[in-house]
Amino acid sequence: MLKQLKEEVLAANLDLPRYQLVAFTWGNVSGVNREQELMVIKPSGVPYNKLKVNDMVVVRLNDGEVVEGDLRPSSDTPTHLVLYRTFSEIGGIVHTHSANATSWAQAGKGIPVLGTTHADYFYGEVPCTRELSEKEIIGNYEIETGQVIVETFKNRGLKPLSIPGVLVHGHAPFVWGKDADNAVHNAVVLEEVAKIATHTYLLNKDLKPIDQRLLDRHFLRKHGVNAYYGQK
Amino acid sequence: MLKQLKEEVLAANLDLPRYQLVAFTWGNVSGVNREQELMVIKPSGVPYNKLKVNDMVVVRLNDGEVVEGDLRPSSDTPTHLVLYRTFSEIGGIVHTHSANATSWAQAGKGIPVLGTTHADYFYGEVPCTRELSEKEIIGNYEIETGQVIVETFKNRGLKPLSIPGVLVHGHAPFVWGKDADNAVHNAVVLEEVAKIATHTYLLNKDLKPIDQRLLDRHFLRKHGVNAYYGQK
Amino acid sequence: MLKQLKEEVLAANLDLPRYQLVAFTWGNVSGVNREQELMVIKPSGVPYNKLKVNDMVVVRLNDGEVVEGDLRPSSDTPTHLVLYRTFSEIGGIVHTHSANATSWAQAGKGIPVLGTTHADYFYGEVPCTRELSEKEIIGNYEIETGQVIVETFKNRGLKPLSIPGVLVHGHAPFVWGKDADNAVHNAVVLEEVAKIATHTYLLNKDLKPIDQRLLDRHFLRKHGVNAYYGQK
Amino acid sequence: MLKQLKEEVLAANLDLPRYQLVAFTWGNVSGVNREQELMVIKPSGVPYNKLKVNDMVVVRLNDGEVVEGDLRPSSDTPTHLVLYRTFSEIGGIVHTHSANATSWAQAGKGIPVLGTTHADYFYGEVPCTRELSEKEIIGNYEIETGQVIVETFKNRGLKPLSIPGVLVHGHAPFVWGKDADNAVHNAVVLEEVAKIATHTYLLNKDLKPIDQRLLDRHFLRKHGVNAYYGQK
Repeated sequence: MLKQLKEEVLAANLDLPRYQLVAFTWGNVSGVNREQELMVIKPSGVPYNKLKVNDMVVVRLNDGEVVEGDLRPSSDTPTHLVLYRTFSEIGGIVHTHSANATSWAQAGKGIPVLGTTHADYFYGEVPCTRELSEKEIIGNYEIETGQVIVETFKNRGLKPLSIPGVLVHGHAPFVWGKDADNAVHNAVVLEEVAKIATHTYLLNKDLKPIDQRLLDRHFLRKHGVNAYYGQK
Repeated sequence: MLKQLKEEVLAANLDLPRYQLVAFTWGNVSGVNREQELMVIKPSGVPYNKLKVNDMVVVRLNDGEVVEGDLRPSSDTPTHLVLYRTFSEIGGIVHTHSANATSWAQAGKGIPVLGTTHADYFYGEVPCTRELSEKEIIGNYEIETGQVIVETFKNRGLKPLSIPGVLVHGHAPFVWGKDADNAVHNAVVLEEVAKIATHTYLLNKDLKPIDQRLLDRHFLRKHGVNAYYGQK
Repeated sequence: MLKQLKEEVLAANLDLPRYQLVAFTWGNVSGVNREQELMVIKPSGVPYNKLKVNDMVVVRLNDGEVVEGDLRPSSDTPTHLVLYRTFSEIGGIVHTHSANATSWAQAGKGIPVLGTTHADYFYGEVPCTRELSEKEIIGNYEIETGQVIVETFKNRGLKPLSIPGVLVHGHAPFVWGKDADNAVHNAVVLEEVAKIATHTYLLNKDLKPIDQRLLDRHFLRKHGVNAYYGQK
Repeated sequence: MLKQLKEEVLAANLDLPRYQLVAFTWGNVSGVNREQELMVIKPSGVPYNKLKVNDMVVVRLNDGEVVEGDLRPSSDTPTHLVLYRTFSEIGGIVHTHSANATSWAQAGKGIPVLGTTHADYFYGEVPCTRELSEKEIIGNYEIETGQVIVETFKNRGLKPLSIPGVLVHGHAPFVWGKDADNAVHNAVVLEEVAKIATHTYLLNKDLKPIDQRLLDRHFLRKHGVNAYYGQK
């Protein structure tokens, strides 16, 4: 069942320690099959060096039921499901506690566009959500985490594939993309962008974001209809 | 004698350079056998790449006598013994000078709970001890180091397995767990948590700790009786 | 065609991930053949681990036409061409988003000469360009990026081989040298110099550049007519 | 001639890139034979991966003449010679531009004893020299660099083996030890101590050095006549 998607999701999960985005069992990647309305996700708490294709858990998109797999899915499964249901254009999601992005999330600050490295991938500030309320934390915490991400994007009118990631306040980043591999790619970029942004602030605390036109130029030469980066 | 424990303690010691927690001969890990009231610990000043199972030193818990082994035990042995005698629920201890945790110890500051990465492992601030007095430094220094850790936990009403580590003022961290391997795991986490906390403060110096409920939620989903992280 | 130059340029490109100056497909290196008035450059958006000698693209120096190669050249090709046309003494150019140099570019600050590590390679501040105007960004952006670098060097009377690199405001460094290999060498040095400079400022924000004589001494003992560093 | 010393000095030089203390050809290690009054040192500007035993250059201690070797000795040779002549108890010297120690040198600040990691190896602040005068820079620069190190130690009454290193103002560290291998060991420690010190200051800018008794305790348990660290 979904053999190819499981392999993609496994490979994307194994990329997390390779890119030094996670320690131990931290982090998880999922991918979605939109036609069958199924999500494949890493099992909870299993070390990366022991993960096998058949450990990947298949979960139904509409109600979160496990339809295949002997292991429990990631405890963050409800967050992934909310995002897939709402952001219909995304195909893969990754959650890590990568150090630099996490420090922005802990500081409760979105990462402003301070340069073209950011602009090449994120078409604006990487937003930080509001804090969850007491009720949300005590209630369906993982679902609420998904909801506050959706709320953040709706309130600001952001498109998920133009800003393929978010910082959850006091927690860490969730990042996505057109598939699992692309989501991990964006998570690596976010960590690098966060690192450079921190260093930039150390040198100049009063810095403003770059000019909107420079942001347009860089994002659109890679992602717009007239993109001219890469091969045809 | 205690062959399995020696192998566990050796493996845990070899993890220290692998996780980049130590340089040269810095750091040491021990494990305890509660039934036989014996501790196994790294010998003093031996390079990690030359450590063998039979180099591990067996020390009696009640009086610190070496009961097996040709080498001298770690100079921090008396500190380990105080901790095992007082914290009856712990099974392994590690001492490192890992850079980020050590910089908090040198700054004389406990690491506040700034995010869920911390909350997943430490159920509150990682405390920093008071400075040792002149008399304590001149006297049985390594025993006093253990005592000031115990005092810190008693005065604040902390449980050793809920806060599995401490910063010794002006010195470096001691970290523990249910066994030697788990202690090293927690030492890796502490170093990562300390690094993220430093970066967070660079972005926002006036930050408050996260909400108590978010701390509860994360610590208890991993460690409480109703934990739902990982496999059953 | 230009087989040796292609091999040099390929090798120099492969050095970028090896020296941890780039992630993914970021960055590009070119080399020039002055007699034939041809430039060899990395193709756009191709991962380093898949690059082959024949993927290198040969571009005509005077009009930018591709004269050999099946792939599109780097999107930064026009910037490289402007630099080769104006700085006749350089033989190789590299562009990266290496984290420390990029953070100075994002902060909009040149890197002052804070020590002899800098003075050994850069005979003065590594300048940061002005911001591009709206018109320049909307227009021939990559050409304008080259022009603003040239303008910066002309206005300040800088010699390209005495200051073999620049920070493009809000973007990242361009670095050059007598050939492609030397350009990458200088890019590694710039990243190290930028890192040390940031750390230096953390310790002393009011620091002045080093004495001009110390700059002279170090730069000239390596690069002057009476250089006495290295072998004859 | 001096085959064993050459092998020791070669091995110590090869440790520099292994411990990530140097890039390219930066840095150099020497060792001394006191009976024969000869120094063995790395040749100038030769990449580490091409160094062979017979490339090591033998230099006479009293007048700096090369007595064996086809290559030119390190350009820092005169500095090494001054140190060996004055500090009769040292047997090896290393010079690097390691990033963290160099940033303290560039900031013109000695590294205060902020914790026991420092106290285990350096019996007090690692001093920073004064700036060299115009005359000293223009004159015999490398000799003057040695002289200002000696002056720093004399003026402050420091013993070279109690404080086995120094920061040269605006330049970088020189570190020494009882032999070449021990000098590199101390250089690794200095880099780590400098890194932790910088992080400590980021957390607490008004920090005072640790208590003299704690410094005594740690330095002397490793280095005093009653040392009890390591094996007998």
